[in-house]
Amino acid sequence: MTKKPLILVTNDDGINAPGIRTLISIMNTIGKVVVVAPDSPQSGMGHAITVDTTLFVDKVQIDDGPQTEYRCSGTPADCVKLAIRELLDRTPDICVSGINHGSNSSISVIYSGTMSAAVEAGIEGIPAIGFSLLDYSWNANFEASKSFVKNITEQVLKNKLPNGIVLNVNIPNLQKNNIKGVKVCRQAKGNWVEEFDKRQNPSGKNYYWLSGKFVNLDGGEDTDEHALENGYISVVPVQFDLTAHPFIKELNSWNLNKSE
Amino acid sequence: MTKKPLILVTNDDGINAPGIRTLISIMNTIGKVVVVAPDSPQSGMGHAITVDTTLFVDKVQIDDGPQTEYRCSGTPADCVKLAIRELLDRTPDICVSGINHGSNSSISVIYSGTMSAAVEAGIEGIPAIGFSLLDYSWNANFEASKSFVKNITEQVLKNKLPNGIVLNVNIPNLQKNNIKGVKVCRQAKGNWVEEFDKRQNPSGKNYYWLSGKFVNLDGGEDTDEHALENGYISVVPVQFDLTAHPFIKELNSWNLNKSE
Repeated sequence: MTKKPLILVTNDDGINAPGIRTLISIMNTIGKVVVVAPDSPQSGMGHAITVDTTLFVDKVQIDDGPQTEYRCSGTPADCVKLAIRELLDRTPDICVSGINHGSNSSISVIYSGTMSAAVEAGIEGIPAIGFSLLDYSWNANFEASKSFVKNITEQVLKNKLPNGIVLNVNIPNLQKNNIKGVKVCRQAKGNWVEEFDKRQNPSGKNYYWLSGKFVNLDGGEDTDEHALENGYISVVPVQFDLTAHPFIKELNSWNLNKSE
Repeated sequence: MTKKPLILVTNDDGINAPGIRTLISIMNTIGKVVVVAPDSPQSGMGHAITVDTTLFVDKVQIDDGPQTEYRCSGTPADCVKLAIRELLDRTPDICVSGINHGSNSSISVIYSGTMSAAVEAGIEGIPAIGFSLLDYSWNANFEASKSFVKNITEQVLKNKLPNGIVLNVNIPNLQKNNIKGVKVCRQAKGNWVEEFDKRQNPSGKNYYWLSGKFVNLDGGEDTDEHALENGYISVVPVQFDLTAHPFIKELNSWNLNKSE
């Protein structure tokens, strides 16, 4: 590649999060970086978009790097839409989202703002990757992830991704020499078992805090959960054609057209 | 079925929307209905969940029907989680979401709060359907959809759905005798082309409204868009294993494990 690639960087933890600052510093070594990221944390936003209120965008400079940065009042998906339609001069060569503070493996891909940004870019035909580190703390240590994030990004720039596919990359919270390598995986079957924490406010009205625990329901050794538990970085190719194609035939045998 | 099925009803337009009131009245003819729905419109919320603020739930009676109803301050996915973990005595036999005021066909399934509620139920192993009418207005006429919604729900109760699959049903905005029938389809390839409406607030600060137009990029005759354009109700089986399985082999040939 003779021309430097244009790299769109976003996340869901907000533009000041250490995870995106790390991602920006890595991307500055690969290409020309434009950041469009939420002004505040947006975890759990799934693929939300802002249709009922206004969106504000400010050009900002958070640190000394060469990147151009915008912070946006919207969701991660809004950031990608605004970047592509309003803020960038040309279509980016790649969109990277993260590095998320916390896992987006298995079913968490569905709730993930990090991955929704990658999917939004994918819908626009832009190669895209969501990166997540399995450490929810603000002071997570992203050091060990750096060379892997860089290589995976370069591999996507080199090999391209087919239309309709983006990558979901999760990184175990380990020292670099304890990371065994990178494994291509499928999404493990699993769910979150919520434990709603029920409380009373000072007026005596009940309210709830959502909390819960992820349960892996998948014994397969080819899943992202299995890779992460065994010290590997998981890479899952993610599609946004949600059609369950193999079930179409059976569904056609149902009596869906019964008239009254 | 000797025992009346327990039916969980939710939506994303809010508990007072005519679409959910219609859906409740249909479901009251099939089983025992419990409604847990957002207290305000949540369109475009995708699969958002509320992790950073409190959730309030009130038992309410909106109309004279036999259903039990709760309104919730959260998203559609929150409503389903709260219903299953806190509000219902037993796991529902089915979850129906909608009837949405407006289409959730093609890529809109990704942004849809209606469908995120159905998917959330599906993750919990509950058969689930999202219903949408192709009319965005609050005063949309749901009359023609009634017998179809009833039959499709009864077919799901009778035939069950495999684990991991929910149905996305979209209904054209036509008189009943102009609806040609029900077609099982795949999700059409398409995207939303946004036109951000850029304005200035009274202090001179720029802001944006998100608006846009759906573009169907799929010429196939087996898609939901094609069915709807031709007067059919579309039924797409939707999965939440997002793994692009056929791409795993190629991805394994990439140099993802390059060491530095």
